[in-house]
Amino acid sequence: MPGNTFGQIFRVTTFGESHGECVGALIDGCPSGLEISPEEIQIDLDRRRPGQSEINSPRDEKDKIHIMSGISEGKTTGAPILLMVFNEDMKPQDYSKLKDVYRPGHADFTYQMKYGIRNFEGGGRSSARETLARVAAGAIAKKFLREKAGIEFLSYVEQVGDLKCELDFNSVTAEQIESNIVRCPDEKAAAEMIELIKKVKEEGDSLGGIIKGVIRKVPVGLGEPVFDKLHADLGKAMLSINAVKGFEIGSGFDSVSMRGSEHNDEFIVGPDGKISTKTNHAGGVLGGISNGETIYFRVAIKPVSTIRKKQNTVNKAGEAVEIEAEGRHDPCVLPRAVPIVDAMAAIVMIDHFLRNR
Amino acid sequence: MPGNTFGQIFRVTTFGESHGECVGALIDGCPSGLEISPEEIQIDLDRRRPGQSEINSPRDEKDKIHIMSGISEGKTTGAPILLMVFNEDMKPQDYSKLKDVYRPGHADFTYQMKYGIRNFEGGGRSSARETLARVAAGAIAKKFLREKAGIEFLSYVEQVGDLKCELDFNSVTAEQIESNIVRCPDEKAAAEMIELIKKVKEEGDSLGGIIKGVIRKVPVGLGEPVFDKLHADLGKAMLSINAVKGFEIGSGFDSVSMRGSEHNDEFIVGPDGKISTKTNHAGGVLGGISNGETIYFRVAIKPVSTIRKKQNTVNKAGEAVEIEAEGRHDPCVLPRAVPIVDAMAAIVMIDHFLRNR
Amino acid sequence: MPGNTFGQIFRVTTFGESHGECVGALIDGCPSGLEISPEEIQIDLDRRRPGQSEINSPRDEKDKIHIMSGISEGKTTGAPILLMVFNEDMKPQDYSKLKDVYRPGHADFTYQMKYGIRNFEGGGRSSARETLARVAAGAIAKKFLREKAGIEFLSYVEQVGDLKCELDFNSVTAEQIESNIVRCPDEKAAAEMIELIKKVKEEGDSLGGIIKGVIRKVPVGLGEPVFDKLHADLGKAMLSINAVKGFEIGSGFDSVSMRGSEHNDEFIVGPDGKISTKTNHAGGVLGGISNGETIYFRVAIKPVSTIRKKQNTVNKAGEAVEIEAEGRHDPCVLPRAVPIVDAMAAIVMIDHFLRNR
Amino acid sequence: MPGNTFGQIFRVTTFGESHGECVGALIDGCPSGLEISPEEIQIDLDRRRPGQSEINSPRDEKDKIHIMSGISEGKTTGAPILLMVFNEDMKPQDYSKLKDVYRPGHADFTYQMKYGIRNFEGGGRSSARETLARVAAGAIAKKFLREKAGIEFLSYVEQVGDLKCELDFNSVTAEQIESNIVRCPDEKAAAEMIELIKKVKEEGDSLGGIIKGVIRKVPVGLGEPVFDKLHADLGKAMLSINAVKGFEIGSGFDSVSMRGSEHNDEFIVGPDGKISTKTNHAGGVLGGISNGETIYFRVAIKPVSTIRKKQNTVNKAGEAVEIEAEGRHDPCVLPRAVPIVDAMAAIVMIDHFLRNR
Repeated sequence: MPGNTFGQIFRVTTFGESHGECVGALIDGCPSGLEISPEEIQIDLDRRRPGQSEINSPRDEKDKIHIMSGISEGKTTGAPILLMVFNEDMKPQDYSKLKDVYRPGHADFTYQMKYGIRNFEGGGRSSARETLARVAAGAIAKKFLREKAGIEFLSYVEQVGDLKCELDFNSVTAEQIESNIVRCPDEKAAAEMIELIKKVKEEGDSLGGIIKGVIRKVPVGLGEPVFDKLHADLGKAMLSINAVKGFEIGSGFDSVSMRGSEHNDEFIVGPDGKISTKTNHAGGVLGGISNGETIYFRVAIKPVSTIRKKQNTVNKAGEAVEIEAEGRHDPCVLPRAVPIVDAMAAIVMIDHFLRNR
Repeated sequence: MPGNTFGQIFRVTTFGESHGECVGALIDGCPSGLEISPEEIQIDLDRRRPGQSEINSPRDEKDKIHIMSGISEGKTTGAPILLMVFNEDMKPQDYSKLKDVYRPGHADFTYQMKYGIRNFEGGGRSSARETLARVAAGAIAKKFLREKAGIEFLSYVEQVGDLKCELDFNSVTAEQIESNIVRCPDEKAAAEMIELIKKVKEEGDSLGGIIKGVIRKVPVGLGEPVFDKLHADLGKAMLSINAVKGFEIGSGFDSVSMRGSEHNDEFIVGPDGKISTKTNHAGGVLGGISNGETIYFRVAIKPVSTIRKKQNTVNKAGEAVEIEAEGRHDPCVLPRAVPIVDAMAAIVMIDHFLRNR
Repeated sequence: MPGNTFGQIFRVTTFGESHGECVGALIDGCPSGLEISPEEIQIDLDRRRPGQSEINSPRDEKDKIHIMSGISEGKTTGAPILLMVFNEDMKPQDYSKLKDVYRPGHADFTYQMKYGIRNFEGGGRSSARETLARVAAGAIAKKFLREKAGIEFLSYVEQVGDLKCELDFNSVTAEQIESNIVRCPDEKAAAEMIELIKKVKEEGDSLGGIIKGVIRKVPVGLGEPVFDKLHADLGKAMLSINAVKGFEIGSGFDSVSMRGSEHNDEFIVGPDGKISTKTNHAGGVLGGISNGETIYFRVAIKPVSTIRKKQNTVNKAGEAVEIEAEGRHDPCVLPRAVPIVDAMAAIVMIDHFLRNR
Repeated sequence: MPGNTFGQIFRVTTFGESHGECVGALIDGCPSGLEISPEEIQIDLDRRRPGQSEINSPRDEKDKIHIMSGISEGKTTGAPILLMVFNEDMKPQDYSKLKDVYRPGHADFTYQMKYGIRNFEGGGRSSARETLARVAAGAIAKKFLREKAGIEFLSYVEQVGDLKCELDFNSVTAEQIESNIVRCPDEKAAAEMIELIKKVKEEGDSLGGIIKGVIRKVPVGLGEPVFDKLHADLGKAMLSINAVKGFEIGSGFDSVSMRGSEHNDEFIVGPDGKISTKTNHAGGVLGGISNGETIYFRVAIKPVSTIRKKQNTVNKAGEAVEIEAEGRHDPCVLPRAVPIVDAMAAIVMIDHFLRNR
């Protein structure tokens, strides 16, 4: 039973291996008539690609998108959309030493046990390179939702290690997020984060952090009542991203220390008769259905598993061995994960938007 | 597009309303030949039902399970299994005052907006009464997994308000969990939690908390690599439970403050040649696939939305109103949510177990 | 991987065994706000039930429908609809002699091989009794389509053995179909069919025949272009009914002897500017999508497998044995299959109607 | 809700347009470890491609297959398999005259109505060119089933116009089928068919016919009891192929004239204790589940809609117009449809084979 497809109506299937011919996404269910160009998709891919700044992996992958089907004269036709990036700048020799070793924190061991095969070069399907396909599909979802419903996606880096962004998410702008290479809208925190990432990189170690997901101008009524609650699908989408260890919506884990009388968001009526809530502990979702407030959530990302420090582990033969990574890896994936969070959020939202029609 | 089904192979669809004729689950895809009796299912339903102790809602629902199809001579036949509980002790008058009011923290507003109908009595499908269907289906999943694979589910209350269980989850036993009415295996913490719940109940207020989910003796290889990662499906399952605001696997949000060199779980070989990890920050899942270590996760539950304190809100006519609940509600749902967490975990695990064959 | 569900958006799952507690259907995905009463559903169930006339099985099953969830104050709420019939007048002793015998033409052998279990009494899930669940679900689908789109379903018996209805399907009315117990609108043919059925019943033998399916006032645009073509889904639906051996749409197998120049339906424009086709060899579907013409198709039903004549077969022990059926069976199922064909057609059409929104 | 995917576990999604960049299939769910080469797939594509003989369309499409992902060192890895053919020899000018005309028998009208767009060049997704993707995916399915279960697929042309193959399907060989350009194993009939096709081509007209599908060495137990009966899924698969108007399994429409006592296949025991049936009216399926006998079915294909003769029709502006096709079309698609029938049969069978594990 395959697991490479996400969504019920807007169905995204990703394919390709980090060191194979290509990586891409096939979208079935995109409505016809949406204008979309390769250039628009490329913008998000460029935000995800390695080598975009001094704090990323120096791998120089251009990740140029090709639209192979489903779009005619610049518009979606309702037919399946095939999006592809052909691989380049692969250095499989970076991985040859690791061929028979189970890298700590990686999927080598579990893949070998499950499939009897290990697509060792670059991690095969478990490589974060798979996420470029999500970003490409998400770019189409975002365009559709912006045009048809005005929905906006604005994720950013909220925390790196113990350094935190101190801004209120309600006031953050896209410009602020893109104003620095770490994608944290708080300039001061961003500067410190960049320093920390450089320092940890020097040490051959790695860092985790938190991405804040923000979705604005959401219509009321998206999400299904029981299993397919909007935040349950958002949670699954985020947890399916490599290295994610936790997800919380609205007040999240902090709600635990509150009383019901504090936590409940009172309904109020605006002068225009519009009903909203005074506070937004719910995070924009009540009973699994969007209530029209801003949706916000937090995604915990573990420190990158690939480090240059020496580690003890085991090889396929069951022998204890030492390894030291040599590939060109990120000390901290958060800046590049921001567009991935946006993309997966958009893929969830378009699916529920279309389900709700 | 309906959202009342969970699972790909072991498919659970729940039905019924809190104040209708019945609540239940239809399971399609349960393998044939499993012995299961109503009494075994009833054990878990009794752990979930209201009125089981002094800290629960005093509603006296017996929640007696009926197996209506799919089981012949005590064994599953491979045909769909229909599980039903007929409703009783309903007091719709408890709700009549709330007919036109949007209760803060509840799904009244979003249902009304989405469906143009509000099944006001007891919340209809958004009522936590729906979860009894999950517990019934989960009892079958747990039995199957125990018999075929030895897998064990051991969730418990880890935190109520700010009071925490101090035990190591690795040593917790089912007996400890069931030894007190709050289902916290740490006796001392349990006593304090019970006091706190009683106090908050007096005040007409409510409490949230954290449930720790523990799954032991998991075979290697469950879970799919990309979107249907094992912890992504566990996360969705937990977030689909009423009042859940957060989910984390293994080190979760705490991983953010660690370096890769600290967080990576080194592989080691036992004297029997069995490969395991020295630490278990991963929480039993690597690359979305179980690695054979204990799976553990935490589920954040917000304070119950229904409180006896006066609250400001809005009614259907768009007028500001005050409400005070009068129904027979729980001040803290955590003790009753423990079997729900186990059930949803088992429903996820049986689905991935069957997918992996 | 279970197979008890039909449909993508209007999802019907059937459950129950012919000699268990109940048979029924769970519908997930029915839009909210549809008025539907048990009495409306009962009309179709009464057309399907045994014992309704002298040419049916004399089993006297009342097949009284119960709506257990999803409908409140006479209207669908958008929640899952549970429809149930509790079994009665079961005479399992009718089947006890057959316990270990593989009846020719029946699923006994294949079930035993597949599941290692044989739910012998009345055939379990392979019993045609399962189809009452389809008829109940179909009644809701028909009501919805009539109200929202004016679509009409008018199946009838076109052939029994070699006796054929000579009427043009375009002029047939519901009254004509229901005017006789064989449900053939051609009075003369109907009388002959009834005689033939009685005669064959006397002989202890059985008959097959053809049901013509007719769907009128279909909007343009239903059906999906590639795999989920409208007539492909109609075909699957019909072939999933017990005893069906063939399906053809429009000109069907007769198209084979025609030239393209004869077969192509020319487009014409009406005085109102409406585009239609001059002929309708297509049967109302072009490229898998409805073109607004009447949809018509034919369903071939084999002679009933249960006969009173002596037959040679094999038992579970692999011994050659003789059997003679004693149950109360139909010599010809066609009159009772008419509402089943309508129901399955409606279930396909509502699903594509909702998919097309 | 998209319709471009077939299958539950072995999921095939096709993409691409007849006059776009490419046509192909993405397979998710193919088990790992299967050896497969582009050359093996190419064999079936070459049987389908135009220009392979004097009775086909003279379009010279090479249809060279590219495996883009999911296969490493010649073996499937368990990851999605992307199969692509890049388009060439496109002559869109062939279609420019038809840009605004609704061709009789084609999907132009229904696409325009459904999508508001018409991908006119070569029919877009409704083009039979889409079927090359099915043939490519089917080649992998056939290889898997031959290796793991010994299942054989042997379809052939049974009828063209009124000319019939007189051979018993039980004795037909692959060599006989491939011994002539019409793919009819009866040499004499084949010669007549070829003459007829040439004659009709001269006349600017077209022909239909019947393909017999044969599946040998099928294990007992494939297929699901209720909706996903094996022959229901085969029927849907065949009816989803362009120009197919009918499907029958085993005795099919002929069963209608038989009595139950004639039609029932008696079970017998072989000297080795193996249970089989004396006759095979069932066509290898009982109660929706394979019984181990040869599966055989017939597929009715209408005469090709594109003809060179003058036809009356209507254009987008709603004006009556005359058309005469000029493209390079087949007068009879049956010889090229044989590998498509095999491919779709294999896609159904592998899915049920994997579902049955």
